[in-house]
Amino acid sequence: MSISPLAKVGCKARLGKNISIGDFTIIHDNVILGDDVTVESHCVLGYPTPNSDGDPLVIGDRAHIRTHSIFYEGSVFGDDLITGHHVMVREKFKAGKNFQIGTMCDFEGYAEVGDYVRTHSNIHITQKIKIGNFVWIFPSTVFSNGLYPPCNELEGSIVEDYAVIGILSCIMPGVSIGTRSLVGSHSLVKRDVLPDTVVGGVPAKKICMTKDLKMRDGSSAYPWTAHFHRGFPEEIVKSWMKEYDHE
Amino acid sequence: MSISPLAKVGCKARLGKNISIGDFTIIHDNVILGDDVTVESHCVLGYPTPNSDGDPLVIGDRAHIRTHSIFYEGSVFGDDLITGHHVMVREKFKAGKNFQIGTMCDFEGYAEVGDYVRTHSNIHITQKIKIGNFVWIFPSTVFSNGLYPPCNELEGSIVEDYAVIGILSCIMPGVSIGTRSLVGSHSLVKRDVLPDTVVGGVPAKKICMTKDLKMRDGSSAYPWTAHFHRGFPEEIVKSWMKEYDHE
Amino acid sequence: MSISPLAKVGCKARLGKNISIGDFTIIHDNVILGDDVTVESHCVLGYPTPNSDGDPLVIGDRAHIRTHSIFYEGSVFGDDLITGHHVMVREKFKAGKNFQIGTMCDFEGYAEVGDYVRTHSNIHITQKIKIGNFVWIFPSTVFSNGLYPPCNELEGSIVEDYAVIGILSCIMPGVSIGTRSLVGSHSLVKRDVLPDTVVGGVPAKKICMTKDLKMRDGSSAYPWTAHFHRGFPEEIVKSWMKEYDHE
Repeated sequence: MSISPLAKVGCKARLGKNISIGDFTIIHDNVILGDDVTVESHCVLGYPTPNSDGDPLVIGDRAHIRTHSIFYEGSVFGDDLITGHHVMVREKFKAGKNFQIGTMCDFEGYAEVGDYVRTHSNIHITQKIKIGNFVWIFPSTVFSNGLYPPCNELEGSIVEDYAVIGILSCIMPGVSIGTRSLVGSHSLVKRDVLPDTVVGGVPAKKICMTKDLKMRDGSSAYPWTAHFHRGFPEEIVKSWMKEYDHE
Repeated sequence: MSISPLAKVGCKARLGKNISIGDFTIIHDNVILGDDVTVESHCVLGYPTPNSDGDPLVIGDRAHIRTHSIFYEGSVFGDDLITGHHVMVREKFKAGKNFQIGTMCDFEGYAEVGDYVRTHSNIHITQKIKIGNFVWIFPSTVFSNGLYPPCNELEGSIVEDYAVIGILSCIMPGVSIGTRSLVGSHSLVKRDVLPDTVVGGVPAKKICMTKDLKMRDGSSAYPWTAHFHRGFPEEIVKSWMKEYDHE
Repeated sequence: MSISPLAKVGCKARLGKNISIGDFTIIHDNVILGDDVTVESHCVLGYPTPNSDGDPLVIGDRAHIRTHSIFYEGSVFGDDLITGHHVMVREKFKAGKNFQIGTMCDFEGYAEVGDYVRTHSNIHITQKIKIGNFVWIFPSTVFSNGLYPPCNELEGSIVEDYAVIGILSCIMPGVSIGTRSLVGSHSLVKRDVLPDTVVGGVPAKKICMTKDLKMRDGSSAYPWTAHFHRGFPEEIVKSWMKEYDHE
């Protein structure tokens, strides 16, 4: 236990074992932290909101939340959450295990994220977005949920397992980004993206299949699971490799 | 009055009645706050700058400024200002009443905003921009004020009443975005946008009139004032509806 | 010396003369600050990381680091560094003198920047990027370093001396942005940009030569060194002007 004397921790907050809380950080009452969680300096956890319906902020074991980050009450994160700095996540956000959130991401809440998802810096996720497992979203991509804003009926998008979205892209409301697909950088995605397909442009159109993309050494760039393993558990990587062995 | 003992409030700051100031927040001397103002934790208000000409930061009644936000001295905000987190607003910024600023917005100052304007997350407003009343700007849109940068003569743009600007758009210098117009997401606006017109693309071109856009239920999406009322005062909504009754 | 009693300064940090450290700021041990350095409130300097190989954060004379900024250990900055607010710079970042970093910039580290570079707000610089001297990068531009992400081999880009990059642009991996060139706003740069050339669009194509661009008064907009001098030392401006005299 290492709680800074310069931090302010609500007396009703439920803390696991071996918690570290940095200087000038505020942990509100309605917070449940797992074991071995690190919350760095200048953070606010369990930011109160009437929209939480009284639900706590729940953060799993081994989370590492970097400086100047804000998490509202009413959201739930699986084990091994890792964040950058200046992250902001609102209420009713639900994420699986080993979610990695980049610096300056801004998540509105009322959204759902699977396991092992990585969102790089400065991503904006709106309400009603559903993101599967093993999805990658690169910097400054923005999701929209209103076709003709401002409007009362919000429409989410779906990003399916293993999909990759490049930098500075717009994902418009109601689209489905298929499994193992690739959205090129600086794209405006207005229509569904089929599985294993590469799209790009403004508006985004089909360019080719992901299997057509070769790296400089001539090997296939996709599925990325064939060559990119950093940060994923060994048993998961083994299951990926087994799949390719069978082919 | 609820001023955190962990905040630092300049003894010359002029505070209204019923003020709440959060932990680790700094209020400098040259600040005037109205009544019922909440300034949350980790903020800096009245950040000193020689460019202010000694003018104070003036914030109207019932403002709610969320965590980690910074406001320079020399700017003026009407009543009912509401901000997200990590907001930064420099000197000589002037805004009317009920301005809502999203998380991570970055406003350079020397700009003017009317009443009831909403800027979502991560908007960049440069110097010399003029924004009318009831304008909506969606996430990650950036205004530019130098046609051939870097240059000494900056040129502003004008966004007229009831206009809506989609996500991740660029508004180039010297353009006028007409009243009740709609700029599509991921657009590069280099020319004036006429009233009631929809534009989109890189560069942005006219797509249709706003009246041509229908929602999924078949009703007209615009003017948005006909169906979107959340957060606006009853008497204003009544005046909008009266107008449609006459038609 | 003016170190706030509300700051926390590691006892091994090496501070120059006439240092100012703001409230709620943390200076870790592995930090070397030059003379006349101002670090404002709510900052974190020398953020520890195993990737620094034990190298300190080195910041030259007369630096001015604004509120809520974070600098990792293992990076080196020349004299006269100036930053906006909410800036984040990771380890192994190396910059020359008089680097100006805008608000909410997010720099990944393992990158190199020359002298007198200005990056406006909300720029994302990834690993392996090399930026020359006197380069301007305007708001919300993002550099990418993975052609087919996620991947293990990262590929940097090069921005050469005096180049200017407009707002909301994507710079793709492996490109070279030539000296004195101009990248238009909202561009997707996938190929090399030749010196003195203007490119724009998605994907970016050659539009004209920079010498073809005229300001409203009919004079040439480029090279910008002929008319824009604010913030540059007199002897440098003199050397620029001498060059034009010879022509």
